[in-house]
Amino acid sequence: MVSYDDARRVLDAQPFSRLVGARLTEFTTGRAVLEVDVDDHLRQQFGLLHGGVLAYAADNALTFAAGSVLGPSVVTAGMTISYLRPVRDGVLRATASVGHHSRRQAVCTAELHAVAPDGAAELCAMAQGTVQAIGGSATATE
Amino acid sequence: MVSYDDARRVLDAQPFSRLVGARLTEFTTGRAVLEVDVDDHLRQQFGLLHGGVLAYAADNALTFAAGSVLGPSVVTAGMTISYLRPVRDGVLRATASVGHHSRRQAVCTAELHAVAPDGAAELCAMAQGTVQAIGGSATATE
Amino acid sequence: MVSYDDARRVLDAQPFSRLVGARLTEFTTGRAVLEVDVDDHLRQQFGLLHGGVLAYAADNALTFAAGSVLGPSVVTAGMTISYLRPVRDGVLRATASVGHHSRRQAVCTAELHAVAPDGAAELCAMAQGTVQAIGGSATATE
Amino acid sequence: MVSYDDARRVLDAQPFSRLVGARLTEFTTGRAVLEVDVDDHLRQQFGLLHGGVLAYAADNALTFAAGSVLGPSVVTAGMTISYLRPVRDGVLRATASVGHHSRRQAVCTAELHAVAPDGAAELCAMAQGTVQAIGGSATATE
Repeated sequence: MVSYDDARRVLDAQPFSRLVGARLTEFTTGRAVLEVDVDDHLRQQFGLLHGGVLAYAADNALTFAAGSVLGPSVVTAGMTISYLRPVRDGVLRATASVGHHSRRQAVCTAELHAVAPDGAAELCAMAQGTVQAIGGSATATE
Repeated sequence: MVSYDDARRVLDAQPFSRLVGARLTEFTTGRAVLEVDVDDHLRQQFGLLHGGVLAYAADNALTFAAGSVLGPSVVTAGMTISYLRPVRDGVLRATASVGHHSRRQAVCTAELHAVAPDGAAELCAMAQGTVQAIGGSATATE
Repeated sequence: MVSYDDARRVLDAQPFSRLVGARLTEFTTGRAVLEVDVDDHLRQQFGLLHGGVLAYAADNALTFAAGSVLGPSVVTAGMTISYLRPVRDGVLRATASVGHHSRRQAVCTAELHAVAPDGAAELCAMAQGTVQAIGGSATATE
Repeated sequence: MVSYDDARRVLDAQPFSRLVGARLTEFTTGRAVLEVDVDDHLRQQFGLLHGGVLAYAADNALTFAAGSVLGPSVVTAGMTISYLRPVRDGVLRATASVGHHSRRQAVCTAELHAVAPDGAAELCAMAQGTVQAIGGSATATE
């Protein structure tokens, strides 16, 4: 299985995750939590956190949650995200859980919260995605 | 209406888009094309372009396409992306089109291609999203 | 607000829901449960419950859950469904919950289970959808 | 490969498709068109075509389009549908195309139109879905 240390090493081996400043704050079987500080270089033209950062965080949290049950060689086949509220400050926290999985595929959900300095968390996006194990004949990356 | 120059100024006013290195290479009524060079800081742990970059590009291209018919004050309500092939090199090109729109909402699709130096383009992701005009009572951010 | 009796009357006023044989077995603020017996006329060519029935049940359960917080005049703007396992027999149960809502829009999730005669429930599909209140200027049906 | 006659036999072998009254009006490599008459038993409480019928038609058209390139043993892994306009009368026509496919998986899009007696067609929903070939180790139904 993939340990928390393994998973953090994978995240750290992703240049784009380092660019965004993501950290893995929880990783257990069937669950992963990814956090991103709302820094100024992650904003859009109105000063809000860019939707692309939420999409990145959802995608990556879903993938890590799936990796906790499928192993480290996985690829995300697809994802749906609904944006609920803008994120202005604090920390973006993406909490992903495995809803169902076979040996080769997992369907996961994620809730993204904006977390204020006092710990108050506000739901700002919801996502659902499918992740496939690589190595067989039916990956999205054939 | 939003001109191509206006749209480029909006993109340039997005710090996250500058961080990723996105440029708007086409912007007409009902259509927007966004390009990103596949630089090393945008990769994941296997050296491929990170899925989060594709999600960002899809999200932003859909939003700009919608903005071409709804005006500059828009917010993306949600998006679905299917990843088809990994992207290794060259340029990521996201081409988004408005499929249907009312005065207050547009549903758009996007095709993401990996474009090689010789111009050969390979489809690597497909997306669909809904974008809403801000300013009325029914935005996703109220 | 919409009572359980009101909600059942709405379902009964839907000819297609009567054709499918759907019943509303729970309806509280933020939550709706819809059930369909797996009858032979609902199958596909391999004898399994048709995916279209699961899509119908997800769509309708999401809409009713949203109606419990938005009122009876709602329209579903979109939905994503992931099919996890085939359904052969028993009862299809779609349980939908409101994840987030404003006055005019709700984002809901649904879990669909195949329920055996002994009560054993197996997750067979997961869905997420957005439902909008009708009557303002920003409905999907304007 | 699957011929048009084969495909029509498959549709006719689906009891639920017969219940809904669906017919396959086109089936070529990478493309399928499914039509449903807007009969009274397919409506919801406001007299409009029920969203579940649109979801069924999108799901089935996507699956048939995928079957035209993957063969007859396929299962739909997931689908996203955006509802654009209500359908009141005439014929619902779902036109699905394969956007990309490997040997084992296809990602398809569908446009759903309401077709009036005079042939005027109005876009009423857009969908995107993933369909997998059965028989390997990586189906959604294993």
